[in-house]
Amino acid sequence: MTRWRIDLAYDGTDFAGWAAQPGQRTVQGVLEEWLGRLLGAAETLPKLTVAGRTDAGVHAQGQVAHLDVPEGARLPPKEVARRLGQVLPSDIVVKAVSEAPVGFDARFAAIWRRYSYRIWDAVSRPDPLLRRTVTQFPEPLDIDAMNQAAMQLLGLRDFAAFCKHREGATTIRELRVFSIVRADDACRTIEATLVADAFCHSMVRSLLGAVTQVGFGRRDLDWICQVRDATSRASSVPVLPPHGLTLAEVGYPSDADLTARVGAARNVRTLNCCEEA
Amino acid sequence: MTRWRIDLAYDGTDFAGWAAQPGQRTVQGVLEEWLGRLLGAAETLPKLTVAGRTDAGVHAQGQVAHLDVPEGARLPPKEVARRLGQVLPSDIVVKAVSEAPVGFDARFAAIWRRYSYRIWDAVSRPDPLLRRTVTQFPEPLDIDAMNQAAMQLLGLRDFAAFCKHREGATTIRELRVFSIVRADDACRTIEATLVADAFCHSMVRSLLGAVTQVGFGRRDLDWICQVRDATSRASSVPVLPPHGLTLAEVGYPSDADLTARVGAARNVRTLNCCEEA
Repeated sequence: MTRWRIDLAYDGTDFAGWAAQPGQRTVQGVLEEWLGRLLGAAETLPKLTVAGRTDAGVHAQGQVAHLDVPEGARLPPKEVARRLGQVLPSDIVVKAVSEAPVGFDARFAAIWRRYSYRIWDAVSRPDPLLRRTVTQFPEPLDIDAMNQAAMQLLGLRDFAAFCKHREGATTIRELRVFSIVRADDACRTIEATLVADAFCHSMVRSLLGAVTQVGFGRRDLDWICQVRDATSRASSVPVLPPHGLTLAEVGYPSDADLTARVGAARNVRTLNCCEEA
Repeated sequence: MTRWRIDLAYDGTDFAGWAAQPGQRTVQGVLEEWLGRLLGAAETLPKLTVAGRTDAGVHAQGQVAHLDVPEGARLPPKEVARRLGQVLPSDIVVKAVSEAPVGFDARFAAIWRRYSYRIWDAVSRPDPLLRRTVTQFPEPLDIDAMNQAAMQLLGLRDFAAFCKHREGATTIRELRVFSIVRADDACRTIEATLVADAFCHSMVRSLLGAVTQVGFGRRDLDWICQVRDATSRASSVPVLPPHGLTLAEVGYPSDADLTARVGAARNVRTLNCCEEA
């Protein structure tokens, strides 16, 4: 078998998320079906492994997946990329298909994930050209207060308060960047950037839910710290809607360090039963 | 009668343009229908006058229209704006409805229009989140060459080569800005900005069609100058697709200068039979 790396982007609006589900239009489902047709494996669909399993409605600009194909596949990866460009619907774009370096694993070799979340904080609706990627709140947010709250959440921590609980899965993550800027004061667009080694399910949208509570002046920094230190899902933290969220980029180590990284990630997984890298 | 100014934005993808047409979904048609219902004038629909009559598929971020309503309309303009926000489809946003200053005319008082046009010049398809607003060309464009070509087209000229001919309508316009930048080299997005007192039908898309020919290296500056000086529509100039085009902003004089401006614009119109301000 040879491993291929697939770089792709999608508009999540009309997908029931990444993960294949019977009877649902999913990114994985659409991609695996077309890969199966192109690679002549329609009966046993190729199986994709992905860096970030995005929820329904979440977008991706820099998603990465991998696929194991039999040696001597009937089409080289570049040709598969070209043909996918002809057949895929307009809301998925495969940017590249390439032979992966030794030890590459889209999920376990990833060392960081970057997400962005966009908010429009005005009574009038957002620009209609932004409506698929921006969450609207009809009251103004205090960006400085949001950034102060975000700073309390940085570091290697148990993010149990911000994660959907999953039996046996750890919620320890390292949040390295959480910053919020007003992209353009006149047009009321706010953009949050988050980088972590990995995020657990609904974590980005819960973190945003918490700091927006501070941005609206409904909660203070003491509350953020209390929530942060909780050991289970905090019901006081709202989960923001999915359509404001985009998986922007996934980081991998240099080719030489790949094998060591995958070993480390798999060990963590075994030790902590981490289900969602 | 009182005149109201309406500031609005729309995603042109699913509209057959601005202008009302029987049996077609148009921006004017949808807006006039809802204004009629809100103002209690469903039988005689209110009539909107607009700054830029955009074609099918063209977007607007800063469109301006006006409407004459009987004195003592049953709702104040702010309330009409609020209610429109509740009932309009998600691809039209009315940003504001306000009482217009004396002498205001959305079309004839406008002193400039600014348009932007977005291009993606790579073989791989553009980011799916941009696909409604970006025109793709699968070969690279030379931005410096495009800007040199654009400079030849600036000034007060007869743009006959770039306009759909209309009996009795002048094609003299003043093109004040025509500049092209690569917004982000990595992601291959090019943005052109054009400002003129007014544009005739298909003019922006024809100007872009001409400078992209130079950007691809198929034509040179001599050709641009020959085309520029032609006195009728140049068949060698391609008209680029509508979905890359957005009406960004419309400029008006200060309130004190409005009446004088409308008089001047109407005079030009009579002298030159200009149909498309």
